[in-house]
Amino acid sequence: MRHQKGRTRVTYCLGMLLNDGLVMAADTRTNAGVDNVATFRKLRVWERPGERVIVLLSAGNLAITQSVVALLEDSVRLEEGDEIAPASHGRLMTVPGLTAAARAVGEAVRAVHHRDAAALREQGNDFICSFLLAGQVRGGPMRLFMIYAAGNYIEAGEDTPFFQIGETKYGKPILDRVISHETPLAEAAKCALVSFDSTMRSNLSVGPPLDLLIYRRDSLGSAVRRRLRADDPYLLTLRDQWGEGVRRLFHDLPDLPFAEDLLPGAPG
Amino acid sequence: MRHQKGRTRVTYCLGMLLNDGLVMAADTRTNAGVDNVATFRKLRVWERPGERVIVLLSAGNLAITQSVVALLEDSVRLEEGDEIAPASHGRLMTVPGLTAAARAVGEAVRAVHHRDAAALREQGNDFICSFLLAGQVRGGPMRLFMIYAAGNYIEAGEDTPFFQIGETKYGKPILDRVISHETPLAEAAKCALVSFDSTMRSNLSVGPPLDLLIYRRDSLGSAVRRRLRADDPYLLTLRDQWGEGVRRLFHDLPDLPFAEDLLPGAPG
Repeated sequence: MRHQKGRTRVTYCLGMLLNDGLVMAADTRTNAGVDNVATFRKLRVWERPGERVIVLLSAGNLAITQSVVALLEDSVRLEEGDEIAPASHGRLMTVPGLTAAARAVGEAVRAVHHRDAAALREQGNDFICSFLLAGQVRGGPMRLFMIYAAGNYIEAGEDTPFFQIGETKYGKPILDRVISHETPLAEAAKCALVSFDSTMRSNLSVGPPLDLLIYRRDSLGSAVRRRLRADDPYLLTLRDQWGEGVRRLFHDLPDLPFAEDLLPGAPG
Repeated sequence: MRHQKGRTRVTYCLGMLLNDGLVMAADTRTNAGVDNVATFRKLRVWERPGERVIVLLSAGNLAITQSVVALLEDSVRLEEGDEIAPASHGRLMTVPGLTAAARAVGEAVRAVHHRDAAALREQGNDFICSFLLAGQVRGGPMRLFMIYAAGNYIEAGEDTPFFQIGETKYGKPILDRVISHETPLAEAAKCALVSFDSTMRSNLSVGPPLDLLIYRRDSLGSAVRRRLRADDPYLLTLRDQWGEGVRRLFHDLPDLPFAEDLLPGAPG
């Protein structure tokens, strides 16, 4: 039932900047065609407990986003499926704060563009990537950025409790209705999972496992990091209760005021 | 909170093919820039009571879609805001059935492309248009088609109770959950309005008035045709009850199983 022409998006990433902390979530599926679906990590953490937590979510062409990460990690290129331990190296472990981190990601994007964009274009591929970057370095505030394929970026501010990249639309209505800066962490994380559920239901190329990271303000350590698989009991409960509840809610809405005009025999 | 680069879409159109009939809906807003917002009819009907009802919804560049309609009406060009009376002229009043009607629309699209696409491209504009066509001609079945900018088309079949064009994603989850070929007309029309409500909430450039047409199978006359304005009491009731209900439903979902790990003082 998808009828607009356009590039298939296969990622959904979500970052929330709340008074109490951060909620960062990403699906893990990627593909390069129907017979080549794999699970890659789109959520990466640079962490030194008590000193910094920096989280990067990525969407777009996997070769590009992996190259960006490799550059940020001083050219240590990741192997496919590599589970990255908290890194002890790379620019995001040394930047003095989050704005410098956003600049570093933007510079890495531009360096990869310089190297690869012409070759990609020759084969008819656009240079497609975007990133959500969030975290806190000791002595500074929590911040959340979105970084574009051009290497520029925007920061989440007073009116912006969340950013999304990738397949963003199906999961946005519930965020619009529920999330504000005041939303408690547990409620925000629950809302993130409902947002992913709506997305996965309407675009089958976004799928579990889901990576979820919840950061408590000023803790300088990631409070919760979970990989939720397709058979996760809580995910299944959310899916069933939400789906059933939405259908019930719809049926409880009042009928069309002109419903009787639709009965057979009513005037045409 | 809209962060993907891309063309702004300002239309949402929806067509449903149900056992009991058709539900066709469109918003009416269009714009060519922030200071030029107007209301145009995106839902057109060719009707001869007892003989045929053919409905066309259009999305995309207004100059293109109006040209397509003008061609279908034997070059009678519409004035802005023209309320079209059931037309007594044009190809859609003479085609023998809906498949021929879809071909006629596709040919009109190709003729406009032939005339305008090069000039549009010179100014950096793509040739953007799409159409939903549905109806019934006496002696034949009801059918629903989607026609693309290339003039080709697809038909709604057994697994496809609805088609959408334009800003389709925000309003799709509720359709996926509720609509099947068996859905009664009044319930389907209610669902269409909820789908538009979700779309209008998340994309402010889609807005009322909404044009709604409901066709009862084999009636060969349009059972209900309504223009619902922004202050329509039923639209307002749907919006309030739906918004409130979704928030309540969300809060009634079970808490995260690891919610207590998020309390201050929990291990990081």
